Amino acid sequence: MKKPSDFSKIAGAVTAPRGFRAAGISAGIKKTGKPDLALIVSDTPATAAATFTTNQVKAAPVRLSMKHVASGRVCAIVANSGNANACTGDIGMFHARAMATATARRLGCTEEEVLVCSTGRIGVPLPIVKVESGIRKIIPHLSAKGGPDAARAIMTSDTKPKEIAVSLNVAGTTIHIGGIAKGAGMIHPNMATMLAFITTDADIPRATLGQMLTHAVDHSFNRISVDGDMSTNDTVIMLANGAAGNKPLKGVTARIFQDALRYVCLELAKMIVRDGERITRFITLTVSGAASDQDAEKAARAVGNSLLVKCSWYGGDPNWGRIMDAIGYSGASVSEGRVMIAYDGVPAVVGGEAAKRGQARIRKIVAKKEFSIEIDLGLGKGACTFYCSDLTEGYVDFNKGE
Amino acid sequence: MKKPSDFSKIAGAVTAPRGFRAAGISAGIKKTGKPDLALIVSDTPATAAATFTTNQVKAAPVRLSMKHVASGRVCAIVANSGNANACTGDIGMFHARAMATATARRLGCTEEEVLVCSTGRIGVPLPIVKVESGIRKIIPHLSAKGGPDAARAIMTSDTKPKEIAVSLNVAGTTIHIGGIAKGAGMIHPNMATMLAFITTDADIPRATLGQMLTHAVDHSFNRISVDGDMSTNDTVIMLANGAAGNKPLKGVTARIFQDALRYVCLELAKMIVRDGERITRFITLTVSGAASDQDAEKAARAVGNSLLVKCSWYGGDPNWGRIMDAIGYSGASVSEGRVMIAYDGVPAVVGGEAAKRGQARIRKIVAKKEFSIEIDLGLGKGACTFYCSDLTEGYVDFNKGE
Repeated sequence: MKKPSDFSKIAGAVTAPRGFRAAGISAGIKKTGKPDLALIVSDTPATAAATFTTNQVKAAPVRLSMKHVASGRVCAIVANSGNANACTGDIGMFHARAMATATARRLGCTEEEVLVCSTGRIGVPLPIVKVESGIRKIIPHLSAKGGPDAARAIMTSDTKPKEIAVSLNVAGTTIHIGGIAKGAGMIHPNMATMLAFITTDADIPRATLGQMLTHAVDHSFNRISVDGDMSTNDTVIMLANGAAGNKPLKGVTARIFQDALRYVCLELAKMIVRDGERITRFITLTVSGAASDQDAEKAARAVGNSLLVKCSWYGGDPNWGRIMDAIGYSGASVSEGRVMIAYDGVPAVVGGEAAKRGQARIRKIVAKKEFSIEIDLGLGKGACTFYCSDLTEGYVDFNKGE
Repeated sequence: MKKPSDFSKIAGAVTAPRGFRAAGISAGIKKTGKPDLALIVSDTPATAAATFTTNQVKAAPVRLSMKHVASGRVCAIVANSGNANACTGDIGMFHARAMATATARRLGCTEEEVLVCSTGRIGVPLPIVKVESGIRKIIPHLSAKGGPDAARAIMTSDTKPKEIAVSLNVAGTTIHIGGIAKGAGMIHPNMATMLAFITTDADIPRATLGQMLTHAVDHSFNRISVDGDMSTNDTVIMLANGAAGNKPLKGVTARIFQDALRYVCLELAKMIVRDGERITRFITLTVSGAASDQDAEKAARAVGNSLLVKCSWYGGDPNWGRIMDAIGYSGASVSEGRVMIAYDGVPAVVGGEAAKRGQARIRKIVAKKEFSIEIDLGLGKGACTFYCSDLTEGYVDFNKGE
């Protein structure tokens, strides 16, 4: 997705929109002493929407934030890295609530107006004393330039912070959208979690915000794969505080805002894949010609999650047989003789069989750090784009544990 | 599954049952010069049953054998390694038929009485001249002791041949069941294929044979995972030639035969996992207490196929958080607070949380080459046992291609 001309990229992450402050500090949760506590605050209560992991095993902070976001009114997001507070039973829920309470007390809002996120190892109780004293310490650091610090404090195995902001002009009013994210990574080594926090100063009703976020997430964070494991803690939160004072978004202006939001989510999602654990390749996978969009998604997911496909990408081997195989077991309707596969536009498979020429060119394409694979099932109009990485020996080494 | 006392293990693989001959030779399909052509022949037409890959992309020999086995009457199985004859279009189908025709001509049976299997790289035309001259060459090698040679000739990345045979006494008649298999492996490196050929001299009606084979396969070959990729060529074939002259299998005798067949399939299946590409651990995964058997299978598959779980097994890290996570996204009904997880019987998770003690013992267990993990979902009576391996840097290196 190219950035449309309707909006421009700017600096500032989650504090680019007016009326937001943020900070990131070290609270001593990580043994390395790296930043591990982030706080994002809206000066006035913001309209909130969120999407959470569909994993049935949900971390305590996920369960708490699901409850709190239901009112649609949020003042702050408090997030720690270094500990997932998942599979921690009643004490885990108590700790998540303690994080909300401590934050609310310092900010003068209610506990229900605070959302809580955690990321790190599963099954280890949260060091709540450190977290609470961290929350005390972080307040004076809150600043309208603190977005990038917050981005650093939610990192686990990420090698770089992930942030983006855009501004758009809507009927004479400038609106900003900012976002930070952390990738599917490990700490200690441990369970992956994807977190993303998006802010905007747009004035936007809650139902619309929820719909727009769901649409953007479906086409960004839900279209990436590093290892196919879905975390207990995955969370995307969006806060809209209305500080821009814009007129209601409708028709064209709503479309522009939706496009900008989708762009923000997609850029963050791509950053997550590009920074996947020890990956060496970034592949944009497009499936078209499927019987339905659902089928296109099934095929794309099967290919993007196949160990054998990922291994061959790592080796720079244009092993399209493994792609055919993955399509075949994906559950999507497939008619072998109609399948076309191309690498950066160069056909490798035509009518389900090897293309007659182009093999040398394809070999050069798959040797690149980034390339695209286009799969046409030749059956209908269903389509899906998916962003994925290779699987490397480094990934296995990194995740093998102690 | 322990071997019941109703039958005993014997030598001889697929030629242990009376009236079967087999051979394995090098036809020059593999560049290494290793054996790559196998032939199994029943002296009289045998009753046949088979199960094939459910992948929608099916190799030409799979499509041909599905047609040929439909009559239920088979004289021979001809199989080559070194080339999968998959995604090869019309010429692939022509080649598969040529293999059947060449074999039938030499044996004096019809083309429809020959089943054909191929395993190796996808998308490369079969070197049919070599295969046909190989079929000519292999006939004089056929022998009642040739089972082990056939087992060698279907190997791809397998490090050892996989064979087993049992004898059982049924109402005064001795019946034999023999089997050979090849594992999920690569050649060149390439796409995995699981093949298994089972023979018996029992006299058994076709419908019963089909039911018994399906049952045995469901609890053996369909309960293993090395990398979660389903091949285009997976095939299990069983031939029963009636040479034992037994009375009809009914009641107890049918149960004994079914148990023996299941044992043969399960032992071959375990050999496949233990010989998985560059694996270092063999895990027996039992899920019980699920809402249904289907749910138990979903949970077991999710755990056994999770990259993160497999990486931690490789590292000897008892990272049960990743198991909880996989159960949670498996699609099985899960109530977090009821989940119990034990390693070789030592509880690691009780009521969804870390067990209070036993961590040092569990650490020793996961450091072993083989151990079991018992997961109790605490919801119902659904159960499933699954056999799986770890994921190693060696696997990635082996499969990265050129």
